[in-house]
Amino acid sequence: MSKIAVVYGSTSDDGVMKGAFEILDEFGVEYESTVISAHRQPEKTAEFAAGASAKGIKVIIAGAGLSAALPGVIAAHTVLPVIGVPIGGGPLNGVDALYSIVQMPKGIPVATVGISNAKNAALLAVEILALSDEELGKKLSVYRLKMKK
Amino acid sequence: MSKIAVVYGSTSDDGVMKGAFEILDEFGVEYESTVISAHRQPEKTAEFAAGASAKGIKVIIAGAGLSAALPGVIAAHTVLPVIGVPIGGGPLNGVDALYSIVQMPKGIPVATVGISNAKNAALLAVEILALSDEELGKKLSVYRLKMKK
Amino acid sequence: MSKIAVVYGSTSDDGVMKGAFEILDEFGVEYESTVISAHRQPEKTAEFAAGASAKGIKVIIAGAGLSAALPGVIAAHTVLPVIGVPIGGGPLNGVDALYSIVQMPKGIPVATVGISNAKNAALLAVEILALSDEELGKKLSVYRLKMKK
Amino acid sequence: MSKIAVVYGSTSDDGVMKGAFEILDEFGVEYESTVISAHRQPEKTAEFAAGASAKGIKVIIAGAGLSAALPGVIAAHTVLPVIGVPIGGGPLNGVDALYSIVQMPKGIPVATVGISNAKNAALLAVEILALSDEELGKKLSVYRLKMKK
Amino acid sequence: MSKIAVVYGSTSDDGVMKGAFEILDEFGVEYESTVISAHRQPEKTAEFAAGASAKGIKVIIAGAGLSAALPGVIAAHTVLPVIGVPIGGGPLNGVDALYSIVQMPKGIPVATVGISNAKNAALLAVEILALSDEELGKKLSVYRLKMKK
Amino acid sequence: MSKIAVVYGSTSDDGVMKGAFEILDEFGVEYESTVISAHRQPEKTAEFAAGASAKGIKVIIAGAGLSAALPGVIAAHTVLPVIGVPIGGGPLNGVDALYSIVQMPKGIPVATVGISNAKNAALLAVEILALSDEELGKKLSVYRLKMKK
Amino acid sequence: MSKIAVVYGSTSDDGVMKGAFEILDEFGVEYESTVISAHRQPEKTAEFAAGASAKGIKVIIAGAGLSAALPGVIAAHTVLPVIGVPIGGGPLNGVDALYSIVQMPKGIPVATVGISNAKNAALLAVEILALSDEELGKKLSVYRLKMKK
Amino acid sequence: MSKIAVVYGSTSDDGVMKGAFEILDEFGVEYESTVISAHRQPEKTAEFAAGASAKGIKVIIAGAGLSAALPGVIAAHTVLPVIGVPIGGGPLNGVDALYSIVQMPKGIPVATVGISNAKNAALLAVEILALSDEELGKKLSVYRLKMKK
Repeated sequence: MSKIAVVYGSTSDDGVMKGAFEILDEFGVEYESTVISAHRQPEKTAEFAAGASAKGIKVIIAGAGLSAALPGVIAAHTVLPVIGVPIGGGPLNGVDALYSIVQMPKGIPVATVGISNAKNAALLAVEILALSDEELGKKLSVYRLKMKK
Repeated sequence: MSKIAVVYGSTSDDGVMKGAFEILDEFGVEYESTVISAHRQPEKTAEFAAGASAKGIKVIIAGAGLSAALPGVIAAHTVLPVIGVPIGGGPLNGVDALYSIVQMPKGIPVATVGISNAKNAALLAVEILALSDEELGKKLSVYRLKMKK
Repeated sequence: MSKIAVVYGSTSDDGVMKGAFEILDEFGVEYESTVISAHRQPEKTAEFAAGASAKGIKVIIAGAGLSAALPGVIAAHTVLPVIGVPIGGGPLNGVDALYSIVQMPKGIPVATVGISNAKNAALLAVEILALSDEELGKKLSVYRLKMKK
Repeated sequence: MSKIAVVYGSTSDDGVMKGAFEILDEFGVEYESTVISAHRQPEKTAEFAAGASAKGIKVIIAGAGLSAALPGVIAAHTVLPVIGVPIGGGPLNGVDALYSIVQMPKGIPVATVGISNAKNAALLAVEILALSDEELGKKLSVYRLKMKK
Repeated sequence: MSKIAVVYGSTSDDGVMKGAFEILDEFGVEYESTVISAHRQPEKTAEFAAGASAKGIKVIIAGAGLSAALPGVIAAHTVLPVIGVPIGGGPLNGVDALYSIVQMPKGIPVATVGISNAKNAALLAVEILALSDEELGKKLSVYRLKMKK
Repeated sequence: MSKIAVVYGSTSDDGVMKGAFEILDEFGVEYESTVISAHRQPEKTAEFAAGASAKGIKVIIAGAGLSAALPGVIAAHTVLPVIGVPIGGGPLNGVDALYSIVQMPKGIPVATVGISNAKNAALLAVEILALSDEELGKKLSVYRLKMKK
Repeated sequence: MSKIAVVYGSTSDDGVMKGAFEILDEFGVEYESTVISAHRQPEKTAEFAAGASAKGIKVIIAGAGLSAALPGVIAAHTVLPVIGVPIGGGPLNGVDALYSIVQMPKGIPVATVGISNAKNAALLAVEILALSDEELGKKLSVYRLKMKK
Repeated sequence: MSKIAVVYGSTSDDGVMKGAFEILDEFGVEYESTVISAHRQPEKTAEFAAGASAKGIKVIIAGAGLSAALPGVIAAHTVLPVIGVPIGGGPLNGVDALYSIVQMPKGIPVATVGISNAKNAALLAVEILALSDEELGKKLSVYRLKMKK
């Protein structure tokens, strides 16, 4: 059963989001992945977000570029932690996506990571899961130790 | 019957949005006004947007600050023209709201006006209505003539 | 008879503006297209804008880069809705054009879309025309449905 | 026993960080709070971060302005989830702090919230704790329901 | 007979433009001053610009905020040197006006000075006039000498 | 005898400054050109600027990138009109050079043109010379007329 | 004999530069202070910088706002370390000064500190002097220890 | 014995930092160089910084991109002068690194040079060493003289 859901707005962001998949694979965390656009598929987005918790999802990673409404819209429909990945590459290099994702109104948080830094989104999700999964916690410590060399 | 709906995210934006009400009153255009938050009230937002056309609404004016998802989320649920007003005043002076509102993905447009310029949003709505309302068109021409003096 | 006029400042923007032509063709909306520079051809620009309504034009799409005065200058000479497309590619990546187009003074609105997003400008124009063209409204709904898949 | 630690760089940020305390109090989550400067007290910062997990802390909220190294330095010393609050008010209105906190290198994530939005940092922390605390999850759902009205 | 024309978009900019008047008075240069809006009074603007040279005007100083089309529109209608003053004070602090005024397309220059720095616009105009007015040149040298103390 | 001096900081800017030479050649205006760095050759820069007027120079065009002190330093040593060209291409795409050149303190103006827009710098210089050179004025009018087609 | 010279462009910056004086007084470092404008008093600036070393000055602290040429111009005339303080408060909040001071061309460095952070400029100067002044080094260590509490 | 230590966050910055090595080699200054990440190797970073002075190091040059905590973290552990090099190339072109490095809190200075301008960092270090090394001072003067030609 997937613990983490990775969603993003367009298959053109596959290259960026791969960074998340690699980390989740490396840590052996089950995840599901869907391409959804908050603006083009609003009902599907709402449905996905509202139903995620019941499916056993613990953390949602949402990547989006430009207006980047996806992470916030998902956060609006769930109380699961939502991690937002601003995706760069457009005319504003992701500053638009960063501002859209991080400047959420009071009441609905999105945990934002760096522009196109999907890898860190996955690591953050792993850190959250590790709070109640000792095995995962050990893997994280080993991962950190490896980085120190 | 209201032709224009004005929605915005928080009563703290009343001062900014008043600029729109004054123009609509001046032109004698019927409108309705609601405070809705796209992030705090996603279902109500979706419902409002999806039902606007059936109620006879022709144009929706949506004001929002910070992440400013409201105009885009409404645009996602209707094919009516949606006019977005980025609301300033936060730490980024409305640049965040401007980028969020104007940088919509291909397929779902939002007609964006200047930061906190609700007056222009209303004038744009009047211009759109005037395309099929000769009387309103004349009022617009008179309004322009008055500005020239 | 053309309902929509597409104008832009330079043939070097053909690639960006093509996005608008494709949408208008897809929806079967008649349009005319002209390359005019507000700064290099001010009289021609004023003449075009002032005469657009009498020719039956309902909406004007104006694309411009850098100082990007074109949309605003056209809006100054007509009460038709004017949609501005900030064109990117220069040293400031279109932020200059975006600010110039969107930050209009009170009284003369320009409906601004995203940087180089001519496609959305055309969709917005179609949404406006669809308010008094039921056939076009149906096409828009079908277009949206297709996007949802 | 505190589940959440709130740290920030200066008592001059008390006003901003109060937003976090209010939320944590409202949800009845135990927390501890310390003023530490990553630059002025690097050893104390490292010690705090390295020891947090053993003390039972589950999530660390770290607020900082300007260079805003605190959240990242803490994240470097722990695998607990670290939530960063960029604090505005300086000459760059918090854009400096936002960039410093969110643009972490690959490997060490910080969950960043909006400029001076300590309230959302606390809500995010509550969402994380609620993953293994059913009671807290219910409170979150009630909190969301109240916001919808 | 006035040698310099000072134009600006709104009486709300009187305070900024006073800096220009003071310099012109100090140097004893005759000038005329008009409030014109490029967007609200496009015909009057064009007429003014096109007729300036025939009236004996040598240099035009044009101040504008926000979209700030005025200097560029005037430059489009005359081959006299046009000096643009970006006026600050709006939500973007004059960056919008600066970009609009300075980023002119190739072919139509505007001599741009600093944000709200009308004093320098007037000094630049004086420097230009001094090229063919020896008396004025001496005054400029004296002015500079005074600054050195 | 040269009427215009073109100076710039580095031979790596030859490509940008060529735009100025082409215009000056097209208008048949005599000019001299020197590569000087305000920071690396401060004495030579001061000497050049202080002596320009006596050599018969009427207008100085100065191009510089990054910190871009050259135009301002030259303006500090002469009362001739100085036109500054911010040169793009570095990590900040010329925004640094633009701010450095345009934001001069009160008392010492620099006439700033768009980023890397050396062509407009030359046209502005020609407009200034044309104030006392009827022949040049006619050429400018012809040049403008050609642009209108 | 003064070891450190503090220069800045205008008495209106006294409030900012006081931060440097307080630190230098606290550490008992002799200094001299002068108000000089690089743009208004270029010869005096050059003379000051060229003569500083011979007077026994070891480090120069230079504060400036807007175009902020002062630190770079001084650095151009000396091989002493020059510390630049970008002074905020204008329409661009010191970003203009920061870019002007820090983006020096290769060959002429300026050691830049934070916007209006004259205190850190003085501490940096003290750190440099302490390399050959053991007593000062001890004072620095004590100062740091005090900060840790 | 090395007088200067050059540290930076990743071997991917070798190309940028080479600019520093070349200058140090040219001036015959002994240096050591290490790749350390403040975020991935916090203990090693602290240890390096705390021990630098005892090893005879006089000046530390620290290069980092993105969040760029390295220079500030090192400065927190030593009273040696620390020179920070913001490294460009990421989505924000080094503006993030520049703000992170230069906007240090009061008490802990970092001497910041331009984006990716490692050459100037090395020259600044040489200027500092030259204060107590007459030979080096002469080399600097010769280097400057060569630049003037």
